[in-house]
Parts: sequence; C-alpha cells; structure tokens
Amino acid sequence: MTTTPAAPIGPSGPKASSGTAKYAYFFGDGQAEGNGQMKDVLGGKGAGLAEMTNAGVPVPPGFTITTEVCRWYYAHDRQLPPGFDAEQGAALTRLETSMGKRLGDADDPLLVSVRSGAKFSMPGMMDTILNLGLNDRSVLGLVKKSGNPRFAWDCYRRFLQMFGSVVLGLEKGDFEEHLEAFKKKRKAKTDQDLSAEDLQGLVKEYKALVKKRTGRDFPQEPLVQLTLSRDAVFRSWMNDRAIYYRRQNRIPDDIGTAVNVQAMVFGNMGESSATGVGFTRNPATGENHFYGEFLTNAQGEDVVAGVRTPRPIADLEKVLPEAFHQLHEITQRLEKHFRDIQDFEFTIQDRKLYLLQTRTGKRTAQAAVRIAVEMVQEGVLSKEEALLRVEPASLDHLLHPRLDPKHKLVQLAQGLAASPGAAVGMAVFDADTAAEWGHAKKKVILVRKETTPDDIHGMDAAQGILTATGGMTSHAAVVARGMGKPCVSGAGAVRVDEKTRSMKVDGKVVKEGEWISLDGSTGKVYVGAAPTIDATVSGEFGTFMGWADEHRRLKVRSNADIPRDAKKAREFGAEGIGLCRTEHMFFAEDRLPWVVQMIMNAPDAKLLRERLAAKEAELAATEQVKSRELKAEVAGLKKKLAQPEKLYRQALAKLFPKQRADFKGLFEVMDGFPVTIRTLDPPLHEFLPKREELMVDIVRLPRATAAQKKEMAKRYRLTVAGLKQGMPGLLHRVEDLHEFNPMLGHRGCRLGITYPEVTEMQARAIFEAACDVAAKGKKVVPEIMIPLVGHVAELKDQAAIVRRVAEEVMTRRKVRVEYLVGTMIEVPRAAVTSDKVAEEAQFFSFGTNDLTQLTFGYSRDDAGKFLPEYVNRKILPIDPFVSLDPEGVGELVKMSVEKGRRTRKDLKVGICGEHGGDPASVEFCHHANLNYVSCSPFRVPIARLAAAQAVVRGKAAGSDQR
Amino acid sequence: MTTTPAAPIGPSGPKASSGTAKYAYFFGDGQAEGNGQMKDVLGGKGAGLAEMTNAGVPVPPGFTITTEVCRWYYAHDRQLPPGFDAEQGAALTRLETSMGKRLGDADDPLLVSVRSGAKFSMPGMMDTILNLGLNDRSVLGLVKKSGNPRFAWDCYRRFLQMFGSVVLGLEKGDFEEHLEAFKKKRKAKTDQDLSAEDLQGLVKEYKALVKKRTGRDFPQEPLVQLTLSRDAVFRSWMNDRAIYYRRQNRIPDDIGTAVNVQAMVFGNMGESSATGVGFTRNPATGENHFYGEFLTNAQGEDVVAGVRTPRPIADLEKVLPEAFHQLHEITQRLEKHFRDIQDFEFTIQDRKLYLLQTRTGKRTAQAAVRIAVEMVQEGVLSKEEALLRVEPASLDHLLHPRLDPKHKLVQLAQGLAASPGAAVGMAVFDADTAAEWGHAKKKVILVRKETTPDDIHGMDAAQGILTATGGMTSHAAVVARGMGKPCVSGAGAVRVDEKTRSMKVDGKVVKEGEWISLDGSTGKVYVGAAPTIDATVSGEFGTFMGWADEHRRLKVRSNADIPRDAKKAREFGAEGIGLCRTEHMFFAEDRLPWVVQMIMNAPDAKLLRERLAAKEAELAATEQVKSRELKAEVAGLKKKLAQPEKLYRQALAKLFPKQRADFKGLFEVMDGFPVTIRTLDPPLHEFLPKREELMVDIVRLPRATAAQKKEMAKRYRLTVAGLKQGMPGLLHRVEDLHEFNPMLGHRGCRLGITYPEVTEMQARAIFEAACDVAAKGKKVVPEIMIPLVGHVAELKDQAAIVRRVAEEVMTRRKVRVEYLVGTMIEVPRAAVTSDKVAEEAQFFSFGTNDLTQLTFGYSRDDAGKFLPEYVNRKILPIDPFVSLDPEGVGELVKMSVEKGRRTRKDLKVGICGEHGGDPASVEFCHHANLNYVSCSPFRVPIARLAAAQAVVRGKAAGSDQR
Repeated sequence: MTTTPAAPIGPSGPKASSGTAKYAYFFGDGQAEGNGQMKDVLGGKGAGLAEMTNAGVPVPPGFTITTEVCRWYYAHDRQLPPGFDAEQGAALTRLETSMGKRLGDADDPLLVSVRSGAKFSMPGMMDTILNLGLNDRSVLGLVKKSGNPRFAWDCYRRFLQMFGSVVLGLEKGDFEEHLEAFKKKRKAKTDQDLSAEDLQGLVKEYKALVKKRTGRDFPQEPLVQLTLSRDAVFRSWMNDRAIYYRRQNRIPDDIGTAVNVQAMVFGNMGESSATGVGFTRNPATGENHFYGEFLTNAQGEDVVAGVRTPRPIADLEKVLPEAFHQLHEITQRLEKHFRDIQDFEFTIQDRKLYLLQTRTGKRTAQAAVRIAVEMVQEGVLSKEEALLRVEPASLDHLLHPRLDPKHKLVQLAQGLAASPGAAVGMAVFDADTAAEWGHAKKKVILVRKETTPDDIHGMDAAQGILTATGGMTSHAAVVARGMGKPCVSGAGAVRVDEKTRSMKVDGKVVKEGEWISLDGSTGKVYVGAAPTIDATVSGEFGTFMGWADEHRRLKVRSNADIPRDAKKAREFGAEGIGLCRTEHMFFAEDRLPWVVQMIMNAPDAKLLRERLAAKEAELAATEQVKSRELKAEVAGLKKKLAQPEKLYRQALAKLFPKQRADFKGLFEVMDGFPVTIRTLDPPLHEFLPKREELMVDIVRLPRATAAQKKEMAKRYRLTVAGLKQGMPGLLHRVEDLHEFNPMLGHRGCRLGITYPEVTEMQARAIFEAACDVAAKGKKVVPEIMIPLVGHVAELKDQAAIVRRVAEEVMTRRKVRVEYLVGTMIEVPRAAVTSDKVAEEAQFFSFGTNDLTQLTFGYSRDDAGKFLPEYVNRKILPIDPFVSLDPEGVGELVKMSVEKGRRTRKDLKVGICGEHGGDPASVEFCHHANLNYVSCSPFRVPIARLAAAQAVVRGKAAGSDQR
Repeated sequence: MTTTPAAPIGPSGPKASSGTAKYAYFFGDGQAEGNGQMKDVLGGKGAGLAEMTNAGVPVPPGFTITTEVCRWYYAHDRQLPPGFDAEQGAALTRLETSMGKRLGDADDPLLVSVRSGAKFSMPGMMDTILNLGLNDRSVLGLVKKSGNPRFAWDCYRRFLQMFGSVVLGLEKGDFEEHLEAFKKKRKAKTDQDLSAEDLQGLVKEYKALVKKRTGRDFPQEPLVQLTLSRDAVFRSWMNDRAIYYRRQNRIPDDIGTAVNVQAMVFGNMGESSATGVGFTRNPATGENHFYGEFLTNAQGEDVVAGVRTPRPIADLEKVLPEAFHQLHEITQRLEKHFRDIQDFEFTIQDRKLYLLQTRTGKRTAQAAVRIAVEMVQEGVLSKEEALLRVEPASLDHLLHPRLDPKHKLVQLAQGLAASPGAAVGMAVFDADTAAEWGHAKKKVILVRKETTPDDIHGMDAAQGILTATGGMTSHAAVVARGMGKPCVSGAGAVRVDEKTRSMKVDGKVVKEGEWISLDGSTGKVYVGAAPTIDATVSGEFGTFMGWADEHRRLKVRSNADIPRDAKKAREFGAEGIGLCRTEHMFFAEDRLPWVVQMIMNAPDAKLLRERLAAKEAELAATEQVKSRELKAEVAGLKKKLAQPEKLYRQALAKLFPKQRADFKGLFEVMDGFPVTIRTLDPPLHEFLPKREELMVDIVRLPRATAAQKKEMAKRYRLTVAGLKQGMPGLLHRVEDLHEFNPMLGHRGCRLGITYPEVTEMQARAIFEAACDVAAKGKKVVPEIMIPLVGHVAELKDQAAIVRRVAEEVMTRRKVRVEYLVGTMIEVPRAAVTSDKVAEEAQFFSFGTNDLTQLTFGYSRDDAGKFLPEYVNRKILPIDPFVSLDPEGVGELVKMSVEKGRRTRKDLKVGICGEHGGDPASVEFCHHANLNYVSCSPFRVPIARLAAAQAVVRGKAAGSDQR
C-alpha cells in the first residue's frame, strides 16, 4: 500500500497508442521532417531544431523521438511501441549518412548527444548525455580524426562520468574523487593541466569504478549506450525535481518528453573552438543588444554549470570574428522569424558555427515589458500581441522595493546582477534550512556555492539568492528570474562553508542567521539588513500599462484599509477601493481597549435592554393604571442596565471619531473614486484573549512569579492586583463568545443585527467623514457594504440603519453625497437567491474567500490538513483559494450575476476576495461580466494586465460577450 | 433605542387602505351580509356567525368589524378609517332594531359582547368584553325587564370587573380582593350567596376603585364603552401572549383581528337559563358521541374559566329537554354542513336556545385519526380528504408514552420540546454514572449542560435527556430523536454542577438520584416521578396509515445505526435504512480504545510511509546501482514505521469484526430492504479528549491529589503512573488534530482519502456481512454512501476502494450481492456540480443538515447566538434546521436533482437530514421528485402521512408532477 508520489502517465494520453504514428523525425541537410508547430509531438527543443533546420540555420543533424514514445513507455511498463526500433534504426542510418560517419567507428566515429525536450521548457530538470558513441575502440578513431588525443580522451572521460551518473546511477562525487586524486597526483591545478595520458588513466579508473559499483562492465556497444541513455531521459521525466518543477509551473504530468539524438559538435577542440549561450536581447533589462556568454575550448555544460566563469559575447568578435558575425546575423533573423526574444546555444567547432538550440527567451518582468513595448515600436508586434507577451503575475516583481540608495551600506561582495530587486534576510547555507526558516516567516537569503535543481524549495522560501559561482544563465539566475526573486550570482569572492554554516568573504565571516542584503539589479551584496524603498516604475511600464488600460473592460480596484495602502493603490492605478475592512482599524493599539470594553458590555446591555423593553411594553399595555410591581421591576432593570449601557455607549463614542478620521483619510486619498466600506465582520472573540490560554493562566496564577503576573497583566490589559478578579470575568465573556465553528458563527451582518448600535456608529463615521470631505469640494463616493448576507431580510435590516443615518447626517450637515448600499456575496444562499438580494442591494461584491470556503466546505485555516494532498494527488486541479474554482464557485458567481441583474439591470458587480489578483480568476471575472475586480495594492497592475489579456484572448477566441 | 418586541403591522397589509371597503357586516334575522368564506375579512368567528345565520341557526344578531379596520388602526397610529364611525353607527342601529332594544336604555337595554376573531383561531389570546351597555341607568332597566335584580347587578358587577381590567388595565386581583372581602363580610361561601344588594354595593366599590386607579369616573356612556372596548380588542392583537401564540403557530402578525359586536343573551337569568360548550364528537378520543359541558344560571366564561365545575351535556336533556334536542339537531346539521367535527358555544336564555359560535374542533392526534377514518366510513369524506385532516407532526405524540394528565405535577423548568414523549427517572449528571445505573436497571434521566458524542453510552442507558443549553438541533436533541428517547434541551434556567452532582433551578436544588420527570412533547420538566400512560395505537391508526401508503409516491426510510433502531423503524413502516452512521458504533465502550489507538498511530504511519515510498522510488529510479546512503535511509524509515504501522493495523483489525457484526445485524433486520451505510464522517478529534481540558490538566497534574490523578487516568485511559508521559503525548495528537472550524475541516470523505485503510476496513466489514447474510438466503441491498463529497474526484477515489473490496470479498465468498455506491450531497459544490458527481454516484442522498449549514454559513452548534433572534424578528421565516429552506437550500436541492438526473436518468435520490421527518420538508421533497426521505424511526409515520398529503394536495392544486 505504498503511495506513488505522482500520478503515473496513463494510457489515455493523446494518441498514446495509435499504431500508425511516426516515432522519429529526422532533421538535417537543410530540411526537417517536422516543423516549429509540432511542440506537442517533438517537444519545444525538437520543434525548434526542425524549424531552425528548415530556416537554413546551421544545425547539427539528428532526429527527435516523439513524446508519444515517452507516454507509451510509461503506459506499457517501460516498453517501447512496436516498430519503434526499426524507425530509430532508419533515422540513425540517415544521420550517419548525413554526417558521413558511423557510430562506434574505429576511424572517424559519429558522436551524438541525447537530450530531453518537453513541450514546455524545464531547464535542468531532466537528464542529458553527451559524447555518446565513444568506447575503447572509437576513442582511438577520434584521436586519429581530430589529431588531438587530449581532446578525445577528455571526451571519453566526460562521457563515462555522465553516463555513469545519469544512466547507471553512480554518485557524481565518486567520479570527482578520482579526478581530484589524479589532479593531486599530477599536481594539476585545473582539469586543463591534465595530459592525454592522465585522462587515459582516468578513463581506466572510471571503467573500474563502474564495474565495481554495478557489477558489470561499462557497455561498449554504442547502440546499447543509446538505448540506455534514451530510457534514462524518459525516466528523468518522473524524477523528483522534474515533478516538483511541473507542479510549480502547472505543467501537466502526462504529456511526456521527447528525446533529441543529435550529432555532436565540439567547442573543446582547442582555441579555435568555443561554445556559448546567448539572448537576442538582454533578458534581465530587455535592452535591445546582443547578449550572451561563451567559453573557448569548452563544452556547453561548462558554461551552464558555472564551474568556469564565461566571457561576455562581445569578446567573441575579437576571438572568432567571422563566427561572431554569422551568429549575430542568424540570431537576428531567428528573432524576426519567431517574433520574440531568442535564447540560443551555439558551438563553434574549429571556426565553424553550429546553432544547437533556439527558443523563446525567459526574461524578467522588466525585460518582458520593455521588449513588448519596443517590439510594438519596431513594428514587429501589435499592441494586442504585446499585451499577451507579459505574464501578469510577473509584474509583481517590478513593483517590489529596492535598497535605499541614501542609506550608507557596507559592501560585502560583488557578483552578477542576475535577477533584479532588493532582498534582505538572514543568511542560510542550505535549502532545507531556508525552507524551514521561510515557513516560520523568517526572512532568509539562500547562499550557495552554486544552486542545483535540488535547491528549489529553499529558493522558493528565500527572499533572494546569492551564489559564489555561475553566470547570468546559471541555474540560480534562471530560476530566480523565473520566480521573480532577486539574485546575485557568481560572486567569486564568496567562500561558502556548508559544514560550519557560514561564508567567508575576504576574511570577513558571515554566520547562519546574520543579516545580509542583496541588490539583484547591481550584483552587490551588503552586510546587515539594509532599508528598502519602493519601486519606481519605468517609462515602458507606463506605456505598457496604458495599453492594458485601453483594452480592458473590467475596472480594477484595490483592497485597502488605511490611507497609506490607498495611496499605494492609486499609484498602481487602482480605480477605487473595493474593500475597506473596518475591523482592521479596531486592532490598532489606541482602539483595542475600547473594542474590548464594547465587547465586555454590549451583550449585557442588549439582554437587559430587551428585558426592560418587554416590561415597559407590558406596563404601557395597561395604559391608564400603572402596576406597582411592574414599575418596580422596570426601575430595577433600568438600574441594572445603567452600567453596561454606559460603558458600551462610551466605547462606541470613543471609537467613533477614530473611525471617522480613518474614513476621512480614505476619501481624501481616493478623491472621486468609489470607496467600498464593509461594516464590522469578524466574530467578536477575535478581539479577546484566547480561551485555552486564559484557562491555563487561571490555573497557573496562584503560583505565578511576580514577573509572570506582570506579563499576564500586560497581556490581559489588567492590573497585577486585578488579575484574580479580572481573568475569570474575561474568561466568562470569552466562554460566552466561544464558538465551535467561528467561520459559521456570530459574525458579519449577524453582528450588526444583534448590535445595531455598532452599524449605526460605523455608518455615522462614514457619512460624517464623507460630508467633511465633500464640504471641501472633493468628490466622495461611499459604497457601504454589508457582509455575510444570506437572506435579503438581513440586508434590509442593516441597509435601513445605514440609510437612516445617512439621511440624518446629510440633513444636519446640509451636504448631499451620492452613496450606494450593497452586499458581499460570500454565502452560497446569497448567490442562489441573488434575484431577491438584488431587490435591496445596489451592488454585489463577491467575497470569494468565504464563498470558496462555504461552497467547498473547507476552512482555510484547517484545509492544510488535506488540501496539499488533494492538489498533489490531483483530486483538485489547483488550490481553490489560489485560483477561483470555475466549475463550482464560479458557477455560483455566474448564477448570482445573472439572477441579480435580472432584478436590477444596472447592478454593479465586483469581486474583493484574494482571487481579485489572480490572473486566471480575473479572466473568469471578465467572462462572468463583472464590473470590477479588487485586489491588494501590489496586485493592481497584475489585475489590469490580466483584464486586458482577457479581452484580447476573448476577441481571438471570438468569445467576448460584449 | 429600545427594540420593539415584534414588527408592527405595516401599511402594506392587503387592502389596508382601499377607500371603498365595507367595514362592518351585519348578521341577524336569518340573514347575514357576510358568509363563511370571508375569514380573511371577518375572521374565523365572524365568518362562522354569518354562515350560521345564513344556515338558519339561531344566532344572536350583531355585526363584525373587519380585520381591515384593525390593520388600518395599526398602520395609522391607532386611528380608524374615515367613514368607519358612520358604518358602525348604522350597524348598531340595525342591531337595536333587530333586538327591539337600545343600548343604554333605562327600560329595556340592549347589552352586547365585544369579541376578537382573527382568521386563525387563537383561543384565549385576545380580549373579550361582555355585558357592554350597562351603566347606572340601564342596570335599572335590566332589573325591570328581567325581574331579577340580582342577575342585573351581577351583570353590571361583571362588566365593571372585565372592563376595568381589560380596557382600563387595572389589576384583576384588585377586583377579586373587593369581592373576597365582601364575601367574608357576608360570610358567603360562593358568589351565588351574595344578594342583589351585596352586588349593588360591590358595584359601588368597583366604581370607586376605577376612579382611584385611573383618576377618572367609569365611563357611563355606552358608545364610549363600545369604542374603548373595540380598541382594547385591537390592542390585544399585539399583546405578548398573542404574539407568542402566533409565533408558535406560524400565524402572520400582519393580518389583524376582526371584532364581533353581538347582542348578549344570558344563561344566567335563573335556572331555566344555561350556557355551555360542546363538540359533535369526543375531541380527545374521536368517539362519535355528542360531547360537551354546561352550567345553568351562568355566563359562558364560567364554563371556560373552571371556577364552577360544569355538568356533562347529557344532563341537559334532563334539565332542558327541548333546548337539548334542538341543540343536538342543529349541531349534527352543522357537522354535516362543515364536514368536520364542530366545537360550539351555546346559551339558553329562559329556555330559548342561541348558538354563539361554531368552528372546526381542535382534537388530539388520536381523535383526529379516528374521526378521519370514521367520517370516511360514514361516507362524509373521501380518503384523500381524510388524509388531510390529520396534522402529520401530531402523530409523533401517538407513538410515545406520555405523562398522565390526571396527575398533579410541580414544574421545575421549561426547555425546548426536543424529542417527544414522557420520561421519568433519577437525575444523574454524567454519562458514566448514567450508563452504570442504567445497566443496573435503574431508571435515570441524564442531565448535562450539553451533550457530546462522549455521552452516547449514557444517553443510551437513560430514559430521557435534559440539557441546559442547545437548541432543537443540538447534539442531545438529534441523538435523542434518533434513539426515540424523550429530550428537553435548552432549559436555560438549569444550572448543572458536575462537581457536586446536582443542578440548581431558580434556587431549587436537585441532587443525583432524585427523581424528575420530563415531557419531551412540551419541554416541561417536573419534580418527582410522575405516572405515565403508554401510547395506544388504535386500529384506526393502521387503517389510516394504510391509506397514506396507498397514496404516497415517496418511499420512507429510517436513519438507524443499530439493529434495535432498525427494528423499531421497520415496525413504524420504514422501507429501508437511509442513513447508518458507522461512527456511532465507534463510540461504544468496547471500541473507543481501538479507535483512539487508530488515531494515535495513523498519521505517523501515513507520514513515514510516504517518506519511505519516496525514498524507495528514488532507489528504484537508480535501477542498476543501489546507493548505500539511500539503502540505509530506506532501512531506517522502515524501522521507524514499523511500530505505528503495527498499532494502526492492529486497531483496524480489532474494529473490523465488530463493524461486520453491526452490519450483519442491520442486514438481517432489514431483510430485503436497502441499507445505506455511510463511511466514517466526523473529524477524528471528536474521539479524543478536549484540548483545553488536557491543557489545564497538564498544568494541574504536578499538584493533583491521588484521587484527582485516578480520575484523570480514567478519563484519559492511561495508568496513573503513565499520566506524566501520556498526557503530553495525547495533547500532541490533539493539537495536531485541532481545527478552528471542525465543520469545515478534515472529515467526511477527506478522512477516507487520507486514510484509505479505514474506508477499506469498513467496506470489507460491509461486504463480508452482506455475503454472510446473503449466504443464508436473505436478500441484502447495501448502498455505500461517501460523505462530504464536493468534487467528483473525491467520490471516484473512495468508490474505487469500495468497488475493489466488494469484488474481492464476493469473489472469495462466491456470493454475488447487488450494491450501489453513492454520495451524500451536503456540500454546496456537490449540488452545483451534480452533473459531474452523477457520473460516479449511483445515488444521491441530501444531507440537508450540513447542506443547510454550508448554504447559510451557519454552524448548528453556534447559531443559537443569533438564530432565535432571527426567527423572533422574522428575519428568517423559520429555523432552517427545523424546516428545509425552500428558497435557498431547496433551490440547490432542485438544481442537484435536475443536473444529476441529466447525467444519470435512473439516479436514486433521497434525503437523510433531520428534515426527512418534517412534514413541510417532506412535501418539498415530493415536489422536488426525490425517491425517498429518511428520518428517525419515530418520525417514519409522520413522513408517510406527509408524503401522502403532498400527493393529495398536489393533485388538488393540479401541480403533481407525475
């Protein structure tokens, strides 16, 4: 009964077993069997190679084994489809013919690479084998043909090492040990110092190692090498880091990977050879200049692995000018062809240029925006296309703070500006600690010699990443940019010591837990926790967001409780406040004591008042004669009521001017834009101490030390002397308010119905503030929102209070303010009965957090017990608190909009849950014909762009409702 | 800011201000302006008087002031509509003409009664004034005309007393004091012993009393008397008891009452006069004989008030034979006319018979059934009509023993009538004692602040349950109804003190072992052991239920967890089990320790197993070479896993045969009828001790006495020595399982998905039991129900386990059993996506308790904080946990049925929430085209009748879907 960590690929994959499929697609000699559109079948890399070949780009020939073969492999107990061997054989023969070489040939052997290539790029997640085809015989052929024995033995050594670890599962470290021992013996500083003979000796040792570990000889037969390598690539589709990466990036598990078998070309055939990677534009800034890195006399892995620090591509013009110009010309052509920034790999073998790969370049949000804008200006893209070129969620990154330049900082190190933005945190030196501290809400910077795919969870939890080696295209840099996290890579002076959990930079030691600061935009690392300042946004950003605003139909508002947040929201383009949570103001230190006083007295006041009213009614019913007993009872109740009533009223009176000031601030900032204010929402016990804490402290009190008592007194806002009396009193009220399911308890409008005085106080504060601001000539648009309405009668009750107070205040102040009264739709019943609710509500705002909780029956606070497993096991496609569930919750939203508008044609409808800042949810809201979405200030640009994309995509699909 | 105890009547009442309305309807002289159909306008009494008049029945003439006047009165600040005075004047003149007397006449005065009369009968709730028209002058006219001064002065005395207390609001007691003082002075034993002079003196004293209390003279002018009395009747519409009665009986507040002004006739004009009330059949038993009581020389109030003991109506034949025969003949005619038992009032004035009122007679459930059956046999009613003549809810009463009404009882407290029937036993205050005493064959009543699942064994052993808190759907109420045990819940005045093993009610103390009696049908608690009488179910009951079964379309099943309940359910006509809650079996004393062992180990086993699986997968991925480190890790995990895995499996193995035995018992009892078994549902922490209790006890432990430690050890199922170690361990697991909103937490199928072994164990127990019983030649129809499904994928996961286990067991046993796998629909998302859910589910069962909780966002456990106020203030028309909310929850039910059947035409659909036994909800289920309802055993007859009524009413309305 073991559980599989991920669902295996089922036999139901697309075309999983169609007998007539083609399994291997050849490319080479200026022509390919596939093309760039066939990503589903050939993967991204394979489709790219075919497209490049067809475009006349010099690409080493080869063939692509389709993704279907991978799906078959998983669906049929790791067997291959019938007929596959013959196809592979034919493709291989064609490749040998094209190259004029044969695999394993003793005179002039063909060497091939075997690489993964899924539909979606998963850099570094799967396995690659290079130099395949070498064996004890063919290595001599390579020596002969290249005239470079050192090169040939180095190839063989590398192949053994790679094949041994990737295909045969040996530890990488075992090979490294042998290499280091050899270097020590030879007193060699670098690999380059080893001679051909040394490498030949190393090959012998490696083969012995393989025999020792696996009990078998290293397979000499090239076809066996190819078969085992191909299967290793298929297997790597389901390795842990690939599965993790797909989950992070929402890539389905069941699409499988293609395998590309391609003739090897060599950048390590001496100084006239080179290898490198590049971008047609700067992927960090978006600047339109030729961008990349290379190493001479090296293989591609050397550039990416970050072992040697590569040279900027401009230097290539000096070293190999012809190849450089050809590369520049071809990549420019490719960018035009694909109409997007290209990320390419190249190898120069003895001055002859080969392109090994080209694909759409990953870029930072900043670069994405700049490239999109400039490509429109260059006439390459339309505005609509440009809008689709930026991932809305990535904008988040642009808007985050940077280090305050005014602050005097002590520099610790300099590295590469690998991913922009500022990060401040405590240094940690392994991914597990980073993840652990991160989940404990500590801010950490993950510091590594270099990162590997195993570190992803730590990177995920960190504020930023610092590496000692590796370039702009190292693992750390690529992944950090993808995550939108600041990263400084290749800070060569940094010596990381994992064992002592510290790093040393020029004699300076930084231990685990000490604060450092990174500037990912400059590559600088500083000592200590530096202050940060908010993002300022580039000109291109403004242009781009302007286009988004031109296209979108949805309005975008922000959730903001205080003027500071409202201001930020306005800066980011919010067109109003969609949710002001008045209770957030209640938690402020100058208010909480009054809130507590309110809660301690309101229930008693209410109870006594009701009893009194009943008695007074009884007295009134006996109109002319007054009963003495009744009179006495009434007098007694009045006396009893006096104290709690006074304290309750006093608390409200104290809170009132503070709330008024809050609202005034919001109205001023939002000058002319609507401000949606929600009346008190959370259950009252949230403002009181925790029940079990009080219970335990009451037991502890008799034996508590003076210090403990002092601490208790502070915590419970009592005097030390008053603890003994006060704590049970407090517990009494806490018990009274205790609920088994607070989510489903006495909260939202249910509070306002029980305690109409609170709604009244809040309404008065809102309208006095509105009148004050309006009197100064500013436009004020208050929208009062009643939470947690399930039945229209609840809304009627609360709306009546709001409207009465509004009239009172406006009449007294002689100011008229237009306002709306509406409701949250967050209870399923409100959605189902929206036709009735809309009789009273002038607007709806979907509280999709609660609506999701109630529609699914999940408590967000508790769902951690099963929701991660649900998502991992794909019982749910995605966490419904992250992205709105279109099938269930979305269905209710649509029903509600439809029913609501049936009653009130001009009903304004928005959303103010967390989903308001999730692009997929925003797109849903667009199609559900909402009027606006509201999200946190930093997500406003995301929502603006997502709203625009929804229009563009909707038009493309011909499905836009408008 | 006082709150009005009830919503005042708004101006929006029907026809509230139509200017052309007629306000006063005359009846008399063999003809009436109104008729029997005009209850809306004339009220029940007024319509009856008109109908009787038109039918030639001797009714004293008078006129009816319409309900519209009352509505106007409340809508217009207690003014009357324009033109009303003139109409009233005209009607009064006509009355005076008809009677040949004038109001206030000094020679032969007309006296009138002024009575309320709403559309629905509200006996005794509103005010009445008799003998109106008497004053110092007209009393002499009455003396003259009647020749009976004592009678005349007695009338005046009575009028003063009634007018004084009802209209002027004086204390009744004040008048009584004077009367008693007078009687003492005259040494009179009864009122009858007072002479005319005495009464004349009393009149003087009464007038003085009025003057003293009100500061004004008693109004002598008859028209003023009439105006004040009429308004007093209007006012009494909104007195507390009328409001209360309407709430209890779901009568709207805004319909108002009519006022009947009618000539007085006198049963107190000497021995040839009489007054009485009667029924055409016995309203207690239904027996078809003339039934009633009378008093000679008395006014009607004397009969009802119970001051003098009236004589049986048979005696009237001896006293006044002519009047008796006329009465008998007329009332028989009236019964035929109205086709129902009549409840009538009559007066004989000097041998002349007058009928004052006739209406449909209120009757007991027993009588209702008998009358309905006999009227069919008499050819008066059709079976369909008869079925509508019995209130389904009233049947409950028939099936339970009740307190002997003849026995005089001292009331202790009042709570909610949570589960009907009478229970008598010794009070005990904890479940263990209840169980212990119960097993020793002692009769006990379990008294708790509130019950929890831990109390089940005590509830099981008790005669009845009393709780201080909790509503109609509290744990105690629900479980007690399920058990068919009487329960009074929410008796707020009861203070339970577990420590001293006693309760206090308003200063009265009841100790453990003292006898108390409960009436679960009224919510009353009495001191001492009251005698009870058994339910007797008549032959007519069988006939009647047979008719119900002939007519209904809905099947009726029962909720039953154990064979005893299932047997009861069968006796009451259940056609299967609609819900067996397997977890109820988990709480039994011989299982709970294993359940706890399961819970203490399952999470660790799961976690370690997953880690192990991941490592083993990693090891397997490196196929050819096995890493030493990995191997060591795998071995280490295996070792760690061994203990929790063993204990978890052991617990399941121990529970398995017990569950199998449970299911076997159910299958045997239900021979051939379907048995729906729900897999484990409640959150696991319900089986563990309470968190805060543990936290407090851990702090207490170091200073606990030996006795306290022993008690803790017992409570936590630990040894005394093991407390120090065990309690933190237990707390650790409890903390681990703690949830903020357990309702929305890790429960239902979420448990089965996390712990598939539990589902598997339960499925195995079900199918082994099914095969065992089927092997004996009995038919077995298991329906396995997966709870709390929100997404079809959850159901798929669990259904796969059930189906796999079913096949395994049946193959091994070589027995085939037809079975279904279905789901509860209790999460709104499941209702909304029912088309998808039905792809997997073979049946739906609406869990309307949870569906109501989630649709409204109300926790049943917490809604007590606001729901009563909601119902009182009519924000909700009715508690949605009592009667299914058709507008919200019902809409989801209908949507679900429709979508589900769209996918699966033969989808079986039922309901198993508490609503299954509520007549209105059953009617809803009929119209929503459900296949069955399921309710607690004692409610089965109610559901059968309600289902039949739905068909009959549906046919009548032409709306039956079939």
